[in-house]
Amino acid sequence: MNELTIILQSDSSDCLYQQIYEYIKSEIKTGKLREDEKLPSTRSLAEYLQVSRSTVNLAYEQLLSEGYIESKPQKGYFVCRLENLIQLKAVTGKTTIEENGSSRKIPNQIYQYDFSPNAANMREFPFATWKKITRNILVDANSEMFALGSPQGDPELRETISRYLFSARGVNCSPKQIIIGAGNDYLLMLLEKILGRHVRIAMENPSYKRAYRIFDSFAYEISAVSMDESGMRVDELEQSGADVAYVMPSHQYPTGVVMPIGRRMELLKWAINQPGRYLIEDDYDSEFRYRGKPIPAFQSSDKYGKVIYIGTFSKSIAPAIRVSYMILPQPLLEIYREKCYFYSSTVSRIDQRILNEFIKEGYFERYLNKMRKIYKEKHDLMLEQLEPFRNKFIISGENAGLHVLLTCRKKRDSSVISEKEFIDQANQAGIKVYGLSDTFIKPPKGERATFLLGYAALEKEEIKEGLEALGRMWL
Amino acid sequence: MNELTIILQSDSSDCLYQQIYEYIKSEIKTGKLREDEKLPSTRSLAEYLQVSRSTVNLAYEQLLSEGYIESKPQKGYFVCRLENLIQLKAVTGKTTIEENGSSRKIPNQIYQYDFSPNAANMREFPFATWKKITRNILVDANSEMFALGSPQGDPELRETISRYLFSARGVNCSPKQIIIGAGNDYLLMLLEKILGRHVRIAMENPSYKRAYRIFDSFAYEISAVSMDESGMRVDELEQSGADVAYVMPSHQYPTGVVMPIGRRMELLKWAINQPGRYLIEDDYDSEFRYRGKPIPAFQSSDKYGKVIYIGTFSKSIAPAIRVSYMILPQPLLEIYREKCYFYSSTVSRIDQRILNEFIKEGYFERYLNKMRKIYKEKHDLMLEQLEPFRNKFIISGENAGLHVLLTCRKKRDSSVISEKEFIDQANQAGIKVYGLSDTFIKPPKGERATFLLGYAALEKEEIKEGLEALGRMWL
Repeated sequence: MNELTIILQSDSSDCLYQQIYEYIKSEIKTGKLREDEKLPSTRSLAEYLQVSRSTVNLAYEQLLSEGYIESKPQKGYFVCRLENLIQLKAVTGKTTIEENGSSRKIPNQIYQYDFSPNAANMREFPFATWKKITRNILVDANSEMFALGSPQGDPELRETISRYLFSARGVNCSPKQIIIGAGNDYLLMLLEKILGRHVRIAMENPSYKRAYRIFDSFAYEISAVSMDESGMRVDELEQSGADVAYVMPSHQYPTGVVMPIGRRMELLKWAINQPGRYLIEDDYDSEFRYRGKPIPAFQSSDKYGKVIYIGTFSKSIAPAIRVSYMILPQPLLEIYREKCYFYSSTVSRIDQRILNEFIKEGYFERYLNKMRKIYKEKHDLMLEQLEPFRNKFIISGENAGLHVLLTCRKKRDSSVISEKEFIDQANQAGIKVYGLSDTFIKPPKGERATFLLGYAALEKEEIKEGLEALGRMWL
Repeated sequence: MNELTIILQSDSSDCLYQQIYEYIKSEIKTGKLREDEKLPSTRSLAEYLQVSRSTVNLAYEQLLSEGYIESKPQKGYFVCRLENLIQLKAVTGKTTIEENGSSRKIPNQIYQYDFSPNAANMREFPFATWKKITRNILVDANSEMFALGSPQGDPELRETISRYLFSARGVNCSPKQIIIGAGNDYLLMLLEKILGRHVRIAMENPSYKRAYRIFDSFAYEISAVSMDESGMRVDELEQSGADVAYVMPSHQYPTGVVMPIGRRMELLKWAINQPGRYLIEDDYDSEFRYRGKPIPAFQSSDKYGKVIYIGTFSKSIAPAIRVSYMILPQPLLEIYREKCYFYSSTVSRIDQRILNEFIKEGYFERYLNKMRKIYKEKHDLMLEQLEPFRNKFIISGENAGLHVLLTCRKKRDSSVISEKEFIDQANQAGIKVYGLSDTFIKPPKGERATFLLGYAALEKEEIKEGLEALGRMWL
C-alpha cells in the first residue's frame, strides 16, 4: 500500500502531525494496517496530504518511539508486530511503573489502581530547582567539565555523598572508598570484576529479583537462604558454603523485615570467620522510615572491612538519575585500584555536578523530608484502610519503605483460593496487585497467599478507592 | 598543629578563599605541612582568621578536590601523601590529557608540548549550543523524562544514531539492534554477558591497551595477532584458536593502518567459517579522514550477522559525553534479549534527549566538519614539519585519525639509541612523546624505535615549536 487517505482538519485542536499519528495508530490497532505492511515514504505521504515533510516526519517519529512502526534503512517504514495491542483497555495513565522488562515487551493491560511496589512518584519532584541548578552549572561549564573525570567519580560529589551518608545513615567512609556509577546494575558488574568469577552468593529468599538475575548472569552460584522474622537465617547461611551474602538489612525487599542489631552482628561474625567473606548491603530505600528510631546502616558497625555498601539516587530522587554509589572496604578497594582502575566513569561530570549541588545546597534533604511526609500519610491511610482486611489477612512490612504485605491467614485448601486466583480476581476489576511468589528465588513449600501493595505512585483517593474495591472482592 | 597563620590581603586580586587555598597548598608542596598532619577544623580556622566559615570551607574543598588533603569523618582534614608533588614544574596547562589512570595517580610532570595521541581538543566545542539545547529540553522536562527509559536506550536516539551511521558510515542496522551505554567500557562489560565467560579473543598487536585490560579483567584468553600493512594477519588469527577478533579496521590504534576491503573479506570469511565466531569492530575515530574516499564500516559488508559494531561520542563530541553505542547482529541480539534485558540503561534520558537534538538538528555534523577541517590543517602542518625527519624516520599512519607514527629507519645498535632513550631526551626538553612499545600486548622482537605523535590538543604554533625542538635533539 502506498496511500493513506487521512482527512486532516485544520480547525481541529490537534495539530496536523498528531492527526496523522492518531490516524495511523488507529489503523494499526484496529488491524487495518497489518504487521510488516510498508508505510508510504514521508515524502510521498507529505505530497499526497499536501503537508510539509517535517509534519509527516514528526508523526512517524512518534509512532516509531511508541513501537507501532519500525524503520528499515533504505527500505522504509513498516508496521510492527503488536499481538496483544488490540485488546488494550482504557488508559488511566496515572502511575509510572518502573520499566524493568525487555525491549520486546508489548504494552500490558492498564489498570485503574496499580499497587506496584516499584513505582516511582515524580509528582513532587522539584523540577524547577533541578532546572535552575542545571542552568547555573551550564553557565560556568567549560572544557574542564566536558573532559573525562576520575574513574571513581568527581571528588566533590564523593565528598558530599560521604557527608550525607555519615549524617543520614551513620556510614563511616572516606570519599576515597566511594565509587560512583550509572546505576546499581553497573556497580554490581564492576563488583564482579573485583570479587572475581568464582563466587557463591547467598541471597535472602524471597529477594529482589533484578539482583538475582544480575548475579545469575555473572554465572555466580546462588544459594537461596530462608528468612525468619529477623532476616536472613545465619545457620542456613553457614551451611550454604557462600562467600558473599547479599542483604537488605534496613528494609528487606519484598518482606519489609528490618534486621535487628543482634542478627547484624551474627552476620558480621559469619563474615569475619573466614577471609574472603563479604556482605553486600543494599540500602535501597532506607530513606523512608516512619516509626521508631532509624537503624544505622550495617556498614556503620563494620570495623573489619567486610561490608560493601550500595545505595542509589534513582530511588530517592528519580529513576532517570542514573547515579548510584558503592563503598568498598579497604581490602576490596585495593583490588579495585589494582585490577579495575582503567574502567572509565559512567556518569558525566555535568550530571555529577548537578547532583552535588542538589545535595549540598540542601534541596535533597528538603525533598526527602517532603516525600517522607507524603509517604507517611499514604502509609497511614493504607493501614487504616486495611483494618477490615485483618480478619482474613496478616499485615506486615509496615513502618518503612513504600509497600506493605498482606498474607492470607489460612493456607490454601478447598475453601481458600490460590494466590494466582486472588490476583486474577483483582485484575478483572482493574486492580493490579503483586504476588509474593514472583519474588522467590527458590519456591517455598506450602506458603500462604501473600501480596505486595505499593502506594508510592497512587494518590490518597486512589488508595482508598482501590482498597475498597479490593475489599469488596476479597473479604 | 591547630593554627595556620595566613596573612590575608583584602586588597589582593585573589579572593580570600583562594589566598587560604594557595597558602595551604604551598605549605604542603614545600613540605611544611607533612603527610597525615591534621588541619585545623573549618570552624577554628575561620575564627582564627576572622573570616566566614564558608570561606574556609571553599578553600578546603578546593584542596580536597585536588587531592592535597583528605577528610576523615568525625576526625577532620588531613594532609595527603604526595610523594612526587614537590618536584612539579611550571604548569602550562594548555592541553587536556585524557585521564585513564588510577585515582591514586599523583600529578605528573607537566610538559610544554604534549603529543598525546589520546588528548581531546575541547576549544572548539559549541558550549553555547549545548547549553541552549539543554535549557530547551529542561523547559519541557516532565516526570516522564525523569522516569527510567528503555534498557537499550531511548528509541528516538537509537533512530537518530542509526540514520547517522547509515549516512556517515554505511552501517546498516535497525534501531532495535542498537544498545546505548555509558561508554565503551560499559558496553564491553555488557558484551561479556552476551558472549559468555569462555571466550578466546584475538587482538591486533599492538592495540588499544585499555581494551586489552578490559578483556583481561574478564579473564578472557587473549591472543596477540601480528599486523602487516593491511592489518590483522588472518593466517595467525586462524592459528590462534580465537572465537572473537577485536579489530579497528577504519584506523587501527596505534598503527594507523586502514584495513583494505580484501583483508576485511578475509576476516569476515574467517568468522563465517565457524558458528560462534564474531568480529568486534571498534570504529573509534572513523570521523577523521583527510584523504581518499571514506571506507564504509566493516559492519556494512556483513550479511551474515558476524560483526559487533562499537562507536562512541566521547571521542567525536567530548570525553564527558558518556554515550557509546553497540550494534548487535541478530543472533547476539536474541541472546541479549533473553539474558540481559534486565540491565537498566546507564545513560539518563535527559542526556539522551540532549544528544539526540544535537545530532538531529545538524549541530553534530557541523561540529564534525569544523573539527575535520581544523584537524586536517594540523595534520598537514604536522607532515610538513616532519619533512626533515624523513631521513632518519619513516612516517606512517597519516591521512586519518589524530596521530601519526615515526619509526626509526635504523634498528637499535651502538650508533642508534633505544626508544626509551629517545623519549627521555624529549622529556628533558619538556616534550612528551609516546613510545609504540607501550601499546604491544606481546612485545615483538627487534622492533625499531617508534613514536606516536598526537596533534588534536595542540595549537598549530605548538606543533611547529614542539617539532622544531624535537628535531634539534633527534636529527
